[in-house]
Amino acid sequence: MLSVADARTKILSAMKPTGHETIALATAHGRVLAVPVTARLTQPPADISAMDGYAVRAADAHEKAVLKLIGSAPAGHPFTGQISAGEAVRLFTGSVMPSGADSVIIQENVTASGADIHINEAAAAGKNIRPAGQDFKVGDILVPAGKMLNARDIGLAAAGNHPWVTVHRRPKIAILSTGDEISLPGEAISDGGIVSSNAHMLAAFVSACGSEPIVLPIAVDDLTAIAGGAEAARGADLLITTGGASVGDHDLVQPALQARGLILDFWKIAMRPGKPLMFGNMDGMPVLGLPGNPVSAYVCALLFISPAVAVLSGLQAEPPMLETARLGATMPANDIREDYVRANLQRDGYEWVATPFGKQDSGMLRTLANAAALIKRQPYDPAKNAGDIVEIVRLGAVGL
Amino acid sequence: MLSVADARTKILSAMKPTGHETIALATAHGRVLAVPVTARLTQPPADISAMDGYAVRAADAHEKAVLKLIGSAPAGHPFTGQISAGEAVRLFTGSVMPSGADSVIIQENVTASGADIHINEAAAAGKNIRPAGQDFKVGDILVPAGKMLNARDIGLAAAGNHPWVTVHRRPKIAILSTGDEISLPGEAISDGGIVSSNAHMLAAFVSACGSEPIVLPIAVDDLTAIAGGAEAARGADLLITTGGASVGDHDLVQPALQARGLILDFWKIAMRPGKPLMFGNMDGMPVLGLPGNPVSAYVCALLFISPAVAVLSGLQAEPPMLETARLGATMPANDIREDYVRANLQRDGYEWVATPFGKQDSGMLRTLANAAALIKRQPYDPAKNAGDIVEIVRLGAVGL
Repeated sequence: MLSVADARTKILSAMKPTGHETIALATAHGRVLAVPVTARLTQPPADISAMDGYAVRAADAHEKAVLKLIGSAPAGHPFTGQISAGEAVRLFTGSVMPSGADSVIIQENVTASGADIHINEAAAAGKNIRPAGQDFKVGDILVPAGKMLNARDIGLAAAGNHPWVTVHRRPKIAILSTGDEISLPGEAISDGGIVSSNAHMLAAFVSACGSEPIVLPIAVDDLTAIAGGAEAARGADLLITTGGASVGDHDLVQPALQARGLILDFWKIAMRPGKPLMFGNMDGMPVLGLPGNPVSAYVCALLFISPAVAVLSGLQAEPPMLETARLGATMPANDIREDYVRANLQRDGYEWVATPFGKQDSGMLRTLANAAALIKRQPYDPAKNAGDIVEIVRLGAVGL
Repeated sequence: MLSVADARTKILSAMKPTGHETIALATAHGRVLAVPVTARLTQPPADISAMDGYAVRAADAHEKAVLKLIGSAPAGHPFTGQISAGEAVRLFTGSVMPSGADSVIIQENVTASGADIHINEAAAAGKNIRPAGQDFKVGDILVPAGKMLNARDIGLAAAGNHPWVTVHRRPKIAILSTGDEISLPGEAISDGGIVSSNAHMLAAFVSACGSEPIVLPIAVDDLTAIAGGAEAARGADLLITTGGASVGDHDLVQPALQARGLILDFWKIAMRPGKPLMFGNMDGMPVLGLPGNPVSAYVCALLFISPAVAVLSGLQAEPPMLETARLGATMPANDIREDYVRANLQRDGYEWVATPFGKQDSGMLRTLANAAALIKRQPYDPAKNAGDIVEIVRLGAVGL
């Protein structure tokens, strides 16, 4: 069976970043920059005051000197004259330095008296001045292509005078849930049937990854219905199916899609939960077939869909970051499959303590929703005791 | 001067969670649940098969037994008859257990031959069955009020048969940037003027916290203009101002708002950057006045606006989680103010190494955008050497 790492490599190598679109900066939070943002101006545009105070010539402004106040220059209203010997200009944070001045003396160090200011503490040349271009210079790259824009990047792009940015189009991810037994919430439930959790869980998941979900109507266990659902996904950047992934007579996803041109890349990986993962390509559209059990579907999403959406979005693909925790209970030796075990977490100082839930059945979605972490276990990982260090994926940290 | 912790306590105690609204589950990702989601059904609804195989009576299905196949029951199509001695029914993952059966024997342990199945490995009572209610029972609380709904919660609410959920209304956060010197990106820039980074940085920031930003037109440094901007914010759950927060003649936010009824709670805190933080209340609307320097504005947002939005949203307020890192360079002793120092991070095994940037001027937005962490320093923290442990806020982890 294929390892998790090899499966991920195969999946990611099939993903191509989406094309570009130009959007308003105010809507660009969380989008992935496709073209670098370069500074259209120099910031600050001139030497400016870093404090409220007085522009002076340091040579004049020794302790006990008295200078003549010749003007005031609030931020946005530069002084147009020239400071000569013995003169000062009132400034505020952000004010442009007047010509001739080489220091700002802060207002706390001055006593103002009519048109005079009395210096109580000597000025120093260059003090309290932000030099032109201290933050950036015109032409500097402010935000590189391939970065997901956070609030700070948005602020920086604004400061660089960009009302628009060019980003990758949000990937469209089509989601096809299959099964005679499933309904959507609020719809009629057949005898012995259940409500589908996967469709909207995965839609929320791929939204959180920055893509646009397309929830296709549920397909019953029928070759034509499944093939029809997949047809409806044409144009998506990725088709995800859930259910019908095993070897039973009613596991029809593979045959239904193969009849419409699916070329299978792999099927089944050495992982628990999520063994019957399928991957292929249907007329240029990558297709990822997840098991129907919601816990399996989620773990596959975390390990494969999240980095796949990253690549589609123009980001670097990275598997979920691993942190360490101390085990809160014993764990038996692991078998051939890489295992992801639902656990709760307690914070102990700066350490995490991870305690696996007793029952790990992949049908139990509630323990997944309650889990704060997945403990990752390598194939053949030996038995572990409470207090041993393990690797975890902290679900709060990945935000999924 | 007020400590950071006391300032946060004062701010948070003035925040009240927003009212409730009912929204479609498919749009509820990232929203905060106001009313618990309780299970409207039992999951699984009946004992179901956990595998593809055959429902049998364990007492009959000993090794080498031959059982008579009397039917097939795919998931969603329960067998309506009864299994008697010597009989079996074909099942699939998710199939309801037929009456009379007490075990599922997996298909790999059986040889099927016409209407007979030959048992190759004995069945065990209860094996491969998910009992009714194993995941949850009708009436169970699936997701508690006050939880921000992630993809797993959405899946669980769906499984519990909820097409709608009742959540807190997104807080409306009005943002008023002030200053004669600032313009929006792409607009005319006055002589010595700069482009406003705060308005859209903060809008993105509060969006990322789950609230709805209202970016008010920029107000010039004029009492009437600032008061008019604040009037336009009426009905918001929080008004944030930037700039005009110091003691200069052109720092007009306090007097402008006080003329319209602002009751000041505090002004100035023992923090760097962000000392001139102001907090008050204007006719029931909390008002937080941030300094105009973008780095100061951001650090104030991280420490005060993020938890404030959490409380408004119905969440527990928590300051950003602290992690530890080893210092990559020396740091001098700190003064009276709690300090937040921009730094980059490298991963060293499971540890972070944080190296502060050399220049920490609060006008330098680019170093903020490039920072991966803020090193938190307590007041009077002594000088530190490379390799010492420090507390950090990892900006990637808080997603802001």
